[in-house]
Amino acid sequence: MDEKEIYKNCTRYLNYHPKKTIKEELNELVEYVDEKIHPDNYGDGELVNNFEKQMAELLGKEAAVFMPSGTMAQQIALRIWCEKANNLTVAMHSDSHLNFAEHYSYLYLHNIKPVLMSMPDYTSKRMLTPKDFENLKVKPGAILLELPQRTLGGQLPSWEDLEKISKWAKENQVPLHLDGARLWESKPFYQKEYADICSLFDTVYISFYKGLGGITGSILAGQKDIIDESRVWQRRLGGNLKSIYPYVLSAKFSVEQRLDKFQQYHDKAVEIASRISKIEGITVTPNPPHSNMFLIHFKSDIEGIKKQNLEIAKEHKFLLVNGFNKALLQGFTWSEVNIGDNALDLDIEEIEKHFKFLMSNN
Amino acid sequence: MDEKEIYKNCTRYLNYHPKKTIKEELNELVEYVDEKIHPDNYGDGELVNNFEKQMAELLGKEAAVFMPSGTMAQQIALRIWCEKANNLTVAMHSDSHLNFAEHYSYLYLHNIKPVLMSMPDYTSKRMLTPKDFENLKVKPGAILLELPQRTLGGQLPSWEDLEKISKWAKENQVPLHLDGARLWESKPFYQKEYADICSLFDTVYISFYKGLGGITGSILAGQKDIIDESRVWQRRLGGNLKSIYPYVLSAKFSVEQRLDKFQQYHDKAVEIASRISKIEGITVTPNPPHSNMFLIHFKSDIEGIKKQNLEIAKEHKFLLVNGFNKALLQGFTWSEVNIGDNALDLDIEEIEKHFKFLMSNN
Repeated sequence: MDEKEIYKNCTRYLNYHPKKTIKEELNELVEYVDEKIHPDNYGDGELVNNFEKQMAELLGKEAAVFMPSGTMAQQIALRIWCEKANNLTVAMHSDSHLNFAEHYSYLYLHNIKPVLMSMPDYTSKRMLTPKDFENLKVKPGAILLELPQRTLGGQLPSWEDLEKISKWAKENQVPLHLDGARLWESKPFYQKEYADICSLFDTVYISFYKGLGGITGSILAGQKDIIDESRVWQRRLGGNLKSIYPYVLSAKFSVEQRLDKFQQYHDKAVEIASRISKIEGITVTPNPPHSNMFLIHFKSDIEGIKKQNLEIAKEHKFLLVNGFNKALLQGFTWSEVNIGDNALDLDIEEIEKHFKFLMSNN
Repeated sequence: MDEKEIYKNCTRYLNYHPKKTIKEELNELVEYVDEKIHPDNYGDGELVNNFEKQMAELLGKEAAVFMPSGTMAQQIALRIWCEKANNLTVAMHSDSHLNFAEHYSYLYLHNIKPVLMSMPDYTSKRMLTPKDFENLKVKPGAILLELPQRTLGGQLPSWEDLEKISKWAKENQVPLHLDGARLWESKPFYQKEYADICSLFDTVYISFYKGLGGITGSILAGQKDIIDESRVWQRRLGGNLKSIYPYVLSAKFSVEQRLDKFQQYHDKAVEIASRISKIEGITVTPNPPHSNMFLIHFKSDIEGIKKQNLEIAKEHKFLLVNGFNKALLQGFTWSEVNIGDNALDLDIEEIEKHFKFLMSNN
C-alpha cells in the first residue's frame, strides 16, 4: 500500500468531523427538509428568509444576508464601510485570511489598501492589541478583526482587550468588522452569548462549514441599510444565485446538529493539549487552547515525523496529524489541530501514546 | 381566492419546466449520484473535474471551470482579456445582461468601461451587426456578444453576420467573448454543433439553469491559460466554494435530461408563434422565433389583459402568461414566452383558444 492508500484506509481521526459521501450528505438534507418548501428564487424564499432572520437574532443584529462564501461577504462589508468613510483603507492583521487565502481581493476588486499595523516588534506572529490601534498614525476606513485567529493557533484577545479595541473604533468612528469564520469556536473562551460578542462589532461574518461542518456558505449581519446595500454587491460579485437553498438547508441543519457542541470540542482540545504538551519535544500554542484548535511545534525535522505518522496510520488505522510544515525555528516542524466530532470519543491515553510514538525517533 | 392563490393553483403552464419542491429536487440528485463519490474540496474532486472536462469538450475548448454564476464567470473573462490588452473597455449591446441585471459589476469591480456602440439608428432594440463593429472609432479591450439576445426576444444574428463579427475581432485582435446563457437554445437556428458555434469565440460562458432547468451554476471555457487565471479571480470574487458539488451534480443531471430537447422546444415555440400571431392584436417577435423564446406584443392596456389572464387561470387552472409589461408603443403591452417541458404536451388548439380569449375584451 502506498502512502495515499494507507491514509485513505484510516477509520479514526484526531481532527474535524466524519467525512461523508455526496449521497450521504444529500440524503440527510432530503430527510431534514420540510417537504412543502420550494426552492428560493435568487435568495428569496421561505427557507432563506427565515434562516437569515434566525441568524440576525442569534447575532443580535438588525438584518442578515446569506452569501455563498465568507470571501464574498467580507469584501462587501469592507467596501461599503470604506466608501461611506470615503477612505479606501482597512486595518487588519498582516496574516489575515484576506491576504494569504483570498489573493488580496479587496485590493484587486475594490482598490482598498491595507493599513500597515506597525507593531513595535514587527511580527505577524502575535495578536493585535489595543495599543497597536492607539499607535496608528493614519485613520483607516474600517478595521477587520479575526476571532479566533487561525494562523496563531486560534488565539483570542482577552475580553478586556476586545472591549478596548471596540471602544477605540467607536471613539475614532471607524467601523469594526468581525471575521467570525470561527465565531462559534470563541464562545467557550469568553463564556458570553454570540450577540454579546457581536455587539462590539458593526458588521459580522460567520461561516457554516469549518466548525459546523455544513457544505458551504456564510452570513453577513449588521444594520439593515448595510445589509440591504450588501445585496446589491452580492449581485455584482455573482453571488446572488438562482437558488441557494442547498447551502442554506445544510447550514440550518448543521446549526441544529452542532452549535451546542463547541464547549465539548473546546474541552477535548484543552484535555489533549494538556496531556501532549508534557511530552518531550512537543509544544502547544496556545496552551491551554482558547478555542477548539491549537498549533503543535515538534522538535523534529519533517521527514522523520512524517514517517512515524504514517506508521501510526498503518498500524492503527488512526490518522493523527493531517499535515506537517517547516517552522521558522530551525529543527522544528509545526501542525494544526482542529477538534470536532471525530475526537470526542477518542481515548486520551491512546492519543498520548501515538504522540509519544511520533516523537520516539528523535 | 385572491390572485396569488389562483395562480398558485394552476396545474398547467405555457412557460418553463415543471416546478418541484426542494425535497423532490434533492431526491432526484440522491438517486442520480454515484454512491462512492465524495464532496469536492474547493472545486477539486472527481465529479467537478470530470464535468469541467466534459463541458470543455462539448464546447470545443481547451479547458473549462465551473462557477456559481454567469455574472461571476463573465466579468472574470472580461477582466482577464482587458488586462491582457491593457485596455479596460468592452464593446457590448447596451441592453446586455451585465447592465440591466448585474448593476454594472464590470465598472464597479473592475473599472472596465463600456464602449458606446454608436448605431446610426441610435436604438438598443435591434441586434448588433458587423457594420456596427466596422464603424467603431475606438478599439475595445474585448467584445461581449449574447446569443441569443434575451431582451430582443431571443434573436440571433445570421451565421454569416456572426462569422463576419468574429472575423473583424480576429483581424483587429480584439478577444470575443460569448454570453451563452442560452447557447443551448441557439442550436436549432444554426443547425451546428456547439463546438462550431463556440469556435468563433475566444471564451464562452454557458448556464445550467435557464433552459436546462438545473439549480444554478455556469461554465467558463477557453484556452488553458485563461481558465487557469480565471480560477484565481474566482477565488477573489468569493466563488471558489468549499464544496460546489450540489450545483455541479444538478448541472450534469440537467444536461443528460434536457440537452437533446432544445429542438423540440424550438419547434413548439415556432408552432405557437405561427398560430397566435394570426390573432387580431397579437404580434410575435421574432416570427418565426429563432430559439425557444419570443416576445408577444398585445394591442391592449395592461389591466384589461391581466384580468383575462387571471380568468383563464381561474377557469382552466392554466397559467398562460407569466407577466405583463408596458410597451414603448402607446396602447401596447408586451410579454415574454419561454418554451420548456411544460408546453411540449399542450394542445395547440387550447393555447390558441386562450390567447383569443386574452384579446377578446379589446
